[in-house]
Amino acid sequence: MTVTRVVAFGGGHGLAASLRALRHCTPELDLDITAVVTVGDDGGSSGRIRAERGGLPPGDLRQALVALAGDHPATRRSAGLFQHRFVPAAGGTGSAGCPAGDRTNRQAAGEPTGDGLAGHAVGNLVLCGLMELLGDPVAALDHAGTMLGAVGRVLPMSCQPVGIEAHVRGADPDRPAEIRTVRGQHQVAVTTGRVEGLRLNPVAPEPCPQAVAAVRAADWLIFGPGSWYTSVLPHLLVPGLAAAIVASPARRLVTLNLAAEKETLGLSLADHLATLRWYLPELKVDLVLADGGAVGDPDPVARTAESLGARLVLAPIALPDGTPRHDPVALGAALVPVLGADR
Amino acid sequence: MTVTRVVAFGGGHGLAASLRALRHCTPELDLDITAVVTVGDDGGSSGRIRAERGGLPPGDLRQALVALAGDHPATRRSAGLFQHRFVPAAGGTGSAGCPAGDRTNRQAAGEPTGDGLAGHAVGNLVLCGLMELLGDPVAALDHAGTMLGAVGRVLPMSCQPVGIEAHVRGADPDRPAEIRTVRGQHQVAVTTGRVEGLRLNPVAPEPCPQAVAAVRAADWLIFGPGSWYTSVLPHLLVPGLAAAIVASPARRLVTLNLAAEKETLGLSLADHLATLRWYLPELKVDLVLADGGAVGDPDPVARTAESLGARLVLAPIALPDGTPRHDPVALGAALVPVLGADR
Repeated sequence: MTVTRVVAFGGGHGLAASLRALRHCTPELDLDITAVVTVGDDGGSSGRIRAERGGLPPGDLRQALVALAGDHPATRRSAGLFQHRFVPAAGGTGSAGCPAGDRTNRQAAGEPTGDGLAGHAVGNLVLCGLMELLGDPVAALDHAGTMLGAVGRVLPMSCQPVGIEAHVRGADPDRPAEIRTVRGQHQVAVTTGRVEGLRLNPVAPEPCPQAVAAVRAADWLIFGPGSWYTSVLPHLLVPGLAAAIVASPARRLVTLNLAAEKETLGLSLADHLATLRWYLPELKVDLVLADGGAVGDPDPVARTAESLGARLVLAPIALPDGTPRHDPVALGAALVPVLGADR
Repeated sequence: MTVTRVVAFGGGHGLAASLRALRHCTPELDLDITAVVTVGDDGGSSGRIRAERGGLPPGDLRQALVALAGDHPATRRSAGLFQHRFVPAAGGTGSAGCPAGDRTNRQAAGEPTGDGLAGHAVGNLVLCGLMELLGDPVAALDHAGTMLGAVGRVLPMSCQPVGIEAHVRGADPDRPAEIRTVRGQHQVAVTTGRVEGLRLNPVAPEPCPQAVAAVRAADWLIFGPGSWYTSVLPHLLVPGLAAAIVASPARRLVTLNLAAEKETLGLSLADHLATLRWYLPELKVDLVLADGGAVGDPDPVARTAESLGARLVLAPIALPDGTPRHDPVALGAALVPVLGADR
């Protein structure tokens, strides 16, 4: 069986779903998986780390690593550790049995008792430490992959963190016609206005060289699912990466979302596809994969897919419980014939 | 070659030196190494974690794990990660290139910018996370050992953190005759008065059951080197552990320090030995290992060793550069004939 080299682009949960699905393509296919991850996050634990210590926001990178973590009980446990989030401690009397009064003694001694760890995922701290220790995000991610026995490689789209900014019409619901600039991935992700323009800050960040190399060597490039403006499109806004995507001999697959998110409220699935072309007009796509139930009338989506050069493939890839999330097993089953097909 | 089961007791740097020396006993000996670690630390990163989140102070446990980390490049790198300490970030513009102004933006947005990670070793955060995730310090340490490819096991002397308290004469240099109670391992370690009494808080903590089992099954128990009051003697103050030590069929070795520390200022090496007997009168010792240069006139040390039932062995085990630290290679070379000798 020949190895099929797959590069999956995305950000947080959507990319993780894509990676989990790719794992379910074995043993039918022998995949060499590379995840290329946005580095625009500025919320939560990642945002604090980025603001306080600089460097790449680790959260989305961690999610991708965990999605690729090996099946051995030890690596699964390490993956659980990476995902473990420190909750705010209740008076320093944690589960492991700190003697009563210890915290009070320290408070009396004037030592810091603010809980600087609360809210952080352990894996974010491990990635932050590795990036500081090794001075190279790619070496840090490769080592974290080794720690987790990862069955693929995780790379950032750029080795520098980026800002995500959007022109949003009606960001203020009281002024539906007004266009405002919304700054920061988190703010863009939660806006209920209509995103009419997207850019990175800096406008043209350097791509991660190893990500460019992976794109050049790939057999398949996979875009989505995921938060369209904040996780999927940013890759197309990194000029060096976009050029590699356009020039790659790889075939290209777009996996569409199951439901609109806040940032894409009012955007149809056909509109999702159209934005790809808007931000990277040279992009050609071979296949668009979507859930039949989520698509409804397939004609508008099929027509927009065609305008990108793509054929629309419908498959039942949503979780059967009705939540708008992809089922990794079903998505994997839908991917096998696609990725395994001869050109 | 039969396996020799060794249990080494201690705290921070002294125990790490002992463990590194034991590693140098291979290939001459086939050792099964267990480190039993004090859990009284209340200073620095460990103290903050303990005060803010409860649970065992992880620093000394981390040092022991790192001393036992495997020689594979990946596990050595993980050991380096465990030891990496987050330095205070200079304005969030860390080495990995955070865009200028990012921190300022967040400050303007009213989000926290206090650097809660500064001063923490990554391994301390990993151990804290594992103990919270698994709810069992021993399972957490075993998993951390797997992550590091450790060539031995690290256990806490008790699964509950303890306080260390001392009656100290002349803790206040202006009142040299006055006895004060000094509380906390860190305060005891830095006192320049004379420690006249040592106790734990709680006075009789439960021993770690796996540590008791290791002591019962051991061929050798090794005490020291290390901070005598805060790293070596506390083990003898855990009643269940002391009983196991006295009852164990194992032979017992004491490795003496090379120089007095603040907490043992004015204490001769013979006095060090005498304290073992003072706090655990039933303790019998087979061998006392010391550096000839550090001992000077061996007669008082040899006599006190004899009173414990022990023979004094002198060997050049200090670093040749004159710093009062043990040379792991030389200490290992001195341990091989000792641990390998027939009874």
